Amino acid sequence: MRIAELSRRAQVPVPTVKYYLREGLLPPGELSSPNQARYDERHIRRLRLIRALLEVGRLPIATIKELLTDLDQPNPDLHHALGRALNATGEATGDVPGSHDVDELIARHGWQVDEHAPARRAVAGVITTMRDLGAEDLLALIDEYARAAELIAATDLELVRRRGEPEAVVHGAVIGTILGDALIAGLRRLAQESASAKLFRTTPDA
Amino acid sequence: MRIAELSRRAQVPVPTVKYYLREGLLPPGELSSPNQARYDERHIRRLRLIRALLEVGRLPIATIKELLTDLDQPNPDLHHALGRALNATGEATGDVPGSHDVDELIARHGWQVDEHAPARRAVAGVITTMRDLGAEDLLALIDEYARAAELIAATDLELVRRRGEPEAVVHGAVIGTILGDALIAGLRRLAQESASAKLFRTTPDA
Repeated sequence: MRIAELSRRAQVPVPTVKYYLREGLLPPGELSSPNQARYDERHIRRLRLIRALLEVGRLPIATIKELLTDLDQPNPDLHHALGRALNATGEATGDVPGSHDVDELIARHGWQVDEHAPARRAVAGVITTMRDLGAEDLLALIDEYARAAELIAATDLELVRRRGEPEAVVHGAVIGTILGDALIAGLRRLAQESASAKLFRTTPDA
Repeated sequence: MRIAELSRRAQVPVPTVKYYLREGLLPPGELSSPNQARYDERHIRRLRLIRALLEVGRLPIATIKELLTDLDQPNPDLHHALGRALNATGEATGDVPGSHDVDELIARHGWQVDEHAPARRAVAGVITTMRDLGAEDLLALIDEYARAAELIAATDLELVRRRGEPEAVVHGAVIGTILGDALIAGLRRLAQESASAKLFRTTPDA
């Protein structure tokens, strides 16, 4: 297909498609004449992935470019490729207070986590913010949240393991991690509303 | 304290503090002379909350203003105030495909969720995006994620219930929901890295 059809089917404007081509986020099409290229289904899938990372994941273009570069590597070492993909989606916030709490949490749960994992600093940052806001009661329940996170991660990894092919594994990890955060946040709202209705409702619905 | 000390202690620049005062996000201080006001600890707590909602929650100022207006209401109906607070933090994405999947999911889990809850549309949007990306295997595990979300919501609501005072309940719900999403996403990364290390590591760390 030509660029106009690619644009229409992936719902991405032509100037944006050209920008992604220039930036290397989208591989070039096959040249059918000196100034015309043809695109295929893989280009549509790639554009949909970019849209999901932008719109659902709210990732910056530079981060998406790094993730896609990883996706395009042949035969990556799975643990390290996953680590890059997962880390790129965390926040590298620099050294922050709260890292001691994170060390203890990781030890209590017997987790194996690299000393330099950005997620350590992300969690430490949230803990510090909660403490600044006087939400110690929320922090007291961090082990409950950690147990839920363990359940989620077990499901995540089981899924990844089933995929087999290294590229599919890394691709799945990126989609699952970023869209999964939005999914879990949405499911949490639904479950909260339901629990709140059962606990607190004092006025019937109209 | 004067505005300069408030700015320093809350780590928010003076022009930003003045902007929040003009916009009504921060209540006015007590006038100590016709053009000088004094601020107290409540102003510091409020500024820290605004920073957390901006920096960790990445919410737009207009949404933060609505949330704070709710927080400032005396004696709100708890279920409805929580609903407003929780809904404001979801995405209202308009009618989308995938809402049938959400109806079925809610029915399977016996959840009580308002027909117009924005979280329904948020979850439907993520489901549709996953389907567009060919991640049906991920969707097949949605009930596992829903069970984890139920655990999280039960912890959330238990915490909220313990707080007792209506203002503290709504305040806690906002902090817990928004900072909680970041916390859970971070804990999920840590737990994923640990599970990945156990499953996939093929090269020892240096």
